[in-house]
Amino acid sequence: MVEIIDGGVTTPQGFKAAGVHSGVKYRSLDLGMLYSEVPASAFVGYTSNNVKAAPVQVMMKENSPTLSAVVVNSGNANALTGRRGIEDAISMKQAVANELGLDPVQVGVMSTGLIGRFMDMHKIRYGISRAAKELSTGREADGLIAEAIMTTDTIKKECAARVRLRDGTLVYIGAISKGSGMISPHMKVLHGTTLSLVTTDASLSPAFREKWQSILDDSMNMVSVDGDQSTNDTCILLANGMSNGRCADDDPEFEDALRTVMTKIARTIAMDGEGATKLIEVQVTGAETKEDARTVVKTIIDSPLVKSAIFGSDPNYGRIMMAVGNSGAKFSMEDVRLIIKGGDMEVPILDSGSPIFQEERAVEVVRMAMDNKEVTIMVDLGVGKEEAVGWGCDLTYDYVRINAEYAT
Amino acid sequence: MVEIIDGGVTTPQGFKAAGVHSGVKYRSLDLGMLYSEVPASAFVGYTSNNVKAAPVQVMMKENSPTLSAVVVNSGNANALTGRRGIEDAISMKQAVANELGLDPVQVGVMSTGLIGRFMDMHKIRYGISRAAKELSTGREADGLIAEAIMTTDTIKKECAARVRLRDGTLVYIGAISKGSGMISPHMKVLHGTTLSLVTTDASLSPAFREKWQSILDDSMNMVSVDGDQSTNDTCILLANGMSNGRCADDDPEFEDALRTVMTKIARTIAMDGEGATKLIEVQVTGAETKEDARTVVKTIIDSPLVKSAIFGSDPNYGRIMMAVGNSGAKFSMEDVRLIIKGGDMEVPILDSGSPIFQEERAVEVVRMAMDNKEVTIMVDLGVGKEEAVGWGCDLTYDYVRINAEYAT
Repeated sequence: MVEIIDGGVTTPQGFKAAGVHSGVKYRSLDLGMLYSEVPASAFVGYTSNNVKAAPVQVMMKENSPTLSAVVVNSGNANALTGRRGIEDAISMKQAVANELGLDPVQVGVMSTGLIGRFMDMHKIRYGISRAAKELSTGREADGLIAEAIMTTDTIKKECAARVRLRDGTLVYIGAISKGSGMISPHMKVLHGTTLSLVTTDASLSPAFREKWQSILDDSMNMVSVDGDQSTNDTCILLANGMSNGRCADDDPEFEDALRTVMTKIARTIAMDGEGATKLIEVQVTGAETKEDARTVVKTIIDSPLVKSAIFGSDPNYGRIMMAVGNSGAKFSMEDVRLIIKGGDMEVPILDSGSPIFQEERAVEVVRMAMDNKEVTIMVDLGVGKEEAVGWGCDLTYDYVRINAEYAT
Repeated sequence: MVEIIDGGVTTPQGFKAAGVHSGVKYRSLDLGMLYSEVPASAFVGYTSNNVKAAPVQVMMKENSPTLSAVVVNSGNANALTGRRGIEDAISMKQAVANELGLDPVQVGVMSTGLIGRFMDMHKIRYGISRAAKELSTGREADGLIAEAIMTTDTIKKECAARVRLRDGTLVYIGAISKGSGMISPHMKVLHGTTLSLVTTDASLSPAFREKWQSILDDSMNMVSVDGDQSTNDTCILLANGMSNGRCADDDPEFEDALRTVMTKIARTIAMDGEGATKLIEVQVTGAETKEDARTVVKTIIDSPLVKSAIFGSDPNYGRIMMAVGNSGAKFSMEDVRLIIKGGDMEVPILDSGSPIFQEERAVEVVRMAMDNKEVTIMVDLGVGKEEAVGWGCDLTYDYVRINAEYAT
């Protein structure tokens, strides 16, 4: 039984964290550090954008199976910075290693913020030295690191869970994440700008990689704020085994707990999308293939017309079908069912491909359903048994404002 | 030598047009009719959205090689209207045929407007009867039909050209188009909501189809306002041969003239994109394949982050490279060149994959280049010889307003 608890990345045993102000940003916290008392098995998902930020390139090259610390800065993405950017990312690892007495290969590095600017390493080194001294455990430390990685985020994204494994061991999972714009992660393990740090005191073997990919595919990789995949997306899971239980690779309780945490984090990112006033959940069923189901979810969630209609509670459901038609997924118009849910209302729009609406009446009902903080779009393609769920947000005046003014 | 002239769809010999108010819309013109004195060879490109509006389904099924008339209404897209929609589209053809003494198979039909509402056929029949009586030639008639097909368009989209063919024949080309939102056509000849009517008095054989696809691929199909492909996109080219010249299929002068007209129309659609304040032209060179070149153009033009940065003249050029990286096209970061043009300014950003900028200075220069009604983004991928050009527009507060309020 998974139990969601009040907690963060230092809730699992043996983890410490810090968040400080290095000066890269004008005032807010901008540098975070995570530390595990013992080397932790590391499972890392990286952006599949072909333009990869310097820290992503460095991490992918080293591909270390274990990590003892991770440093992360906000305000500068260290992307599109050429050779100098690579050197800076390596220097960040080295500086953390020096402070904590580690081998640099045991240090992960993540950056988020503006693209195309060189790092101010003087400030970063100062921040690293300060963070190393302030590492600690507890809800304050959790909150500081969660804040230090924020960019246009308006809320801290934290989640923690407790679960008893089959062998009786009680393990904890903690997670923080950031991401508000340039969000359409499609992270590949080994090989999102959402940055996520997930900690657990469970024991995991390298074989857990495949399950981690599957969990990412169903959670973080099903979030889209704007369909733009970042150069920096990275999601690190650290498992330090300090709960002293058996290997949890195949424990369904553990997988369930990790899925629960990651799904909550994914929903929070969508809900806090740049300028968002509403969370949109899209549920697709009856697809012929899993890929089709995912594609339909993404096409609906990425449609600016669907997103702006939901912002205005404009009952323009034809746009949803426009998006379904553009997805390229197999379906037959005669079998399609479409339902819009919001609050207590569940409004069937199409059944067996035919409009159910009685014109003006339906328009009012759909508007009322859309006029909620959370709107669910359910599409049954009627041709198979595969399904997918994804999360996005509405397209608002504030999205435009935030992104027309970002660099300045 | 192609000469752009003041004209519209009735500029070529033998074409008449009308635009009337049928009552589907509250006040503005909403029904247009085009007529050719002799049956014209018809080349039609349709949306490749799998959800196709009723008129598109009807036209594709009949696939008539010649057409004598086309009826088009705005205000209602006759999409997502099931069997009744199909019957209504057929009735529209029949009504025109009756009025003009034609076989219904000789009548094309196009609709644009709201999705998911039944047509008010009483009003449509009244409009058809009125339009049939008002068919005429000249700039007033051109203007009326161009206005009748508009939805959220703010300007009429017309273009005409005159060209002397190799055989000495002087031929005319006229074109009208509408399209402001739900614009990302990917029209396939025989088999884009932009609606376009293109007329010419040149003679064309059915074999011209392939060239028409190629011209559409380089013009209309390279426009994107929001990446959402409509259920209704249709582009009809009618060639009635009344110039009495030889078959112009292989005449480079004719192809050049038609490309010029279609490119102008495509640019106008992008410029008048919903809420747009700026035209964005993206030129990609040095791609390995044509497909790669087109994909990079589309990925940049569809990126909400790039579009909103250009709206705000925010020199956030990293977002352009983010989009290039997401395109999936082959390139090597070491060879990429990026230039931003606006007004008289041409600002190199990346050369051989390295930033040229001297930080603060460059930011100001890029902002000045972006602060123009037309911004050009040039990307050289440096891996091949293929290229593509496409057009889009900025993402603005007005785009959100228009689409949050559309149905109501």
